[in-house]
Amino acid sequence: MVEQRVIDTVRRVFELNGFLGIETRAVEQGSSLLKKGETSKEIYLLSRLQEVGSESDTPVEDRLGLHFDLTVPLSRYVVEHSGALTFPFKRWQIQKVWRGERPQEGRFREFVQADIDVVGNGELPEHYEVELPLVMVSAMEELRAFGMPKATVHANNRKLSEGFYRGLGLSDVEGVLREVDKLDKIGADEVVKLLVQDCGADEAQARACLALAALRAENGTALRAGFAELCDRYGIGHESEAYELAEQGLSTLAMIVDEAAKIRPGAVIADLSIARGLDYYTGSVYETFLDGASSLGSVCSGGRYDNLATQGNRRYPGVGLSIGLSRLVSYMLHTAGAKASRTSPAAVLVAVWDESTRPVSNAIARSLRGRGIAADVSPSAAKLGKQIRYADHLGIPYVWFPADASTADAQGDGSSDEVKNILTGEQKRADPLSWMPDTVYAQQSVQIEDKAQA
Amino acid sequence: MVEQRVIDTVRRVFELNGFLGIETRAVEQGSSLLKKGETSKEIYLLSRLQEVGSESDTPVEDRLGLHFDLTVPLSRYVVEHSGALTFPFKRWQIQKVWRGERPQEGRFREFVQADIDVVGNGELPEHYEVELPLVMVSAMEELRAFGMPKATVHANNRKLSEGFYRGLGLSDVEGVLREVDKLDKIGADEVVKLLVQDCGADEAQARACLALAALRAENGTALRAGFAELCDRYGIGHESEAYELAEQGLSTLAMIVDEAAKIRPGAVIADLSIARGLDYYTGSVYETFLDGASSLGSVCSGGRYDNLATQGNRRYPGVGLSIGLSRLVSYMLHTAGAKASRTSPAAVLVAVWDESTRPVSNAIARSLRGRGIAADVSPSAAKLGKQIRYADHLGIPYVWFPADASTADAQGDGSSDEVKNILTGEQKRADPLSWMPDTVYAQQSVQIEDKAQA
Repeated sequence: MVEQRVIDTVRRVFELNGFLGIETRAVEQGSSLLKKGETSKEIYLLSRLQEVGSESDTPVEDRLGLHFDLTVPLSRYVVEHSGALTFPFKRWQIQKVWRGERPQEGRFREFVQADIDVVGNGELPEHYEVELPLVMVSAMEELRAFGMPKATVHANNRKLSEGFYRGLGLSDVEGVLREVDKLDKIGADEVVKLLVQDCGADEAQARACLALAALRAENGTALRAGFAELCDRYGIGHESEAYELAEQGLSTLAMIVDEAAKIRPGAVIADLSIARGLDYYTGSVYETFLDGASSLGSVCSGGRYDNLATQGNRRYPGVGLSIGLSRLVSYMLHTAGAKASRTSPAAVLVAVWDESTRPVSNAIARSLRGRGIAADVSPSAAKLGKQIRYADHLGIPYVWFPADASTADAQGDGSSDEVKNILTGEQKRADPLSWMPDTVYAQQSVQIEDKAQA
Repeated sequence: MVEQRVIDTVRRVFELNGFLGIETRAVEQGSSLLKKGETSKEIYLLSRLQEVGSESDTPVEDRLGLHFDLTVPLSRYVVEHSGALTFPFKRWQIQKVWRGERPQEGRFREFVQADIDVVGNGELPEHYEVELPLVMVSAMEELRAFGMPKATVHANNRKLSEGFYRGLGLSDVEGVLREVDKLDKIGADEVVKLLVQDCGADEAQARACLALAALRAENGTALRAGFAELCDRYGIGHESEAYELAEQGLSTLAMIVDEAAKIRPGAVIADLSIARGLDYYTGSVYETFLDGASSLGSVCSGGRYDNLATQGNRRYPGVGLSIGLSRLVSYMLHTAGAKASRTSPAAVLVAVWDESTRPVSNAIARSLRGRGIAADVSPSAAKLGKQIRYADHLGIPYVWFPADASTADAQGDGSSDEVKNILTGEQKRADPLSWMPDTVYAQQSVQIEDKAQA
């Protein structure tokens, strides 16, 4: 129920921002899933029961596999439907994906991703590189009602890092990115060792790479100042092609943090240690961390990819981000104490005095439902205490007593319907055509349990 | 978009009726999927990329497969969570399922099912056998707004058929049901031939089975009269165990059509030709046909199953129905002419005069979104005609012109924001803090295309 509300919330933000929803099949061709030769991907392949024993006769490329993200399907979708789409094509997609990873906290083999991407035909304006992370920030802001901490998007830019490394005289850019990405895990000295050992760097070049990774800034001015200082310190002149490349990335990144700061100060920062994915993306790259929950890792990642899809000579560049919703929901449930306000969506349980009068109870429930009030009817004409216990177990706040003279008791004379709030004990006369539940009890909702009290 | 609205609608009806939503993983153990020895099922088994070539080392029972319905997962779920559930457990579940069938019109390998079931612990009151089909009827009534024709639930009862066959002296009940089910396809004479040949019936017994299958009734009185007449005609006495069994089924079926007729006359009829599934279900069985679309087959089927799940000595009987949503959506799209009222969820496209003033346009869009109005911002500061064409392609009804003195033209002096309805041509001054779209243009919705006009 919490996951459903999270999905509804995120979808609403995506639609408010004008993204079109698409849904693609769970399977893609093996050849698409393995496109980048990533045979290390933990893909699930399918086989039909009738094929058992002869699965291996079909090459993996020709078999079907479950998608492991929503980018591979998007790329196929864009090519298949390019003639029918209006570009730039803004789409949202919220679906399950599957990866054969070893399950652990926050890592699932089946999980829900919520993606937005903008795909251009040939070209794609840069302003989407700031707008898309901001859509995700506003979605994540909405999710704070479900116990999610404040999220900060950390942005970097492939061109900036690559230009700087080349300016230093390093040419194995992918290699440097790969080693710098290990900084958190193995520490600076080990990274320096690996850069020297495997990437053709000398000690000074390696230290310069680490100095770049240490740069963080909340606005363009600070970012530019910090980068200029590094170029001076490591002797990177302003006249080289490498510097020009770095300057392109710098200018995009500065624009992103400045524009974002105007709208949501502190929501998007420049963080030049973000290296993961830089070998894949061609411009901006984003990772998102939660205050006080950094062990969760990035909960919303993405970037700009100039060849999201290609069709003959045609290129479709894209900018996109993906929220790992299941990981967030897991955090909400297990750490933040989010839970359904009640088990049943019903606000009312209509009691049944006798199986012969069940149709009366059913009619009351129908009348309530017709006015949008979710109602259940007691499973049996058991003793009233048992019927109330059933409501109580399901968290249904109101029990409705149909008029019945034979049930006259201290609380009512049975001459009219009465409804009891079993949480407060309040009981009063009620008409199924006009009665309304108190707002706080009307809808099943998500509550955050106060862990301190619990 | 149509499918999404259909799912939202069905889910709302289920929740109004007090059903709890659950979501289960896409995979189940091979042993569960093949439980009833149905190796003919077109199940998709999974294998990890790393296992290619050695898949067959693992017996099918120990492999994972995609679920082909939502009943197998429910049965596992109930057993796994029996301690935490309140019984009778009413649950809805809307998910994709997969079957390796040969794709054809209305048959998909991946499709969405919408299920409701009530599961009892040990026992389950009979009234659910009329309430559940009525929930489905009310869901299908709501779907008529999407172009779905009127649906009629055809109900039968296993006990009624079995008691009648045994009363005739036939003992191969499963066999008789299987042959009677072929009536539509091969005709009465062929069915008689098969009953004689394979089920130990003589010609008269076979004709009696067909006479039962011809019985239809819209109320309990007609049903009882018709059945009594058949018993007289074929000499089935009222004193046998077989008759007692038939009488149990008859009484349930009569209750179902009578109760349903009070609430929605004609929505549920007794139809004793419904044989499919009778070998699986233990009491009531339902199939649902659409007016004028009988070629689609049953769009909502189910029944009562006394052993939906078992756990040691404990039995969990269930009553449930399943709508094949994808088949319905396919009908809506391709036959009924349902389509999205517009491609984009956005009601407004905010124009951009110049890239330097994009932040102004973004602020207007944010202000609209804050009031629940979906808004997009023009991808580029192209000529106004091009921006309007972008809105037009996406079906966005309004284009918003931010105030800008330099854009003064015949229609406005540029001193205030203006908004133009590009469908009606109407343009007027507007304030992003208070303007509202006309209701008819506010939300993306589902429309039924008038095929006669098209």
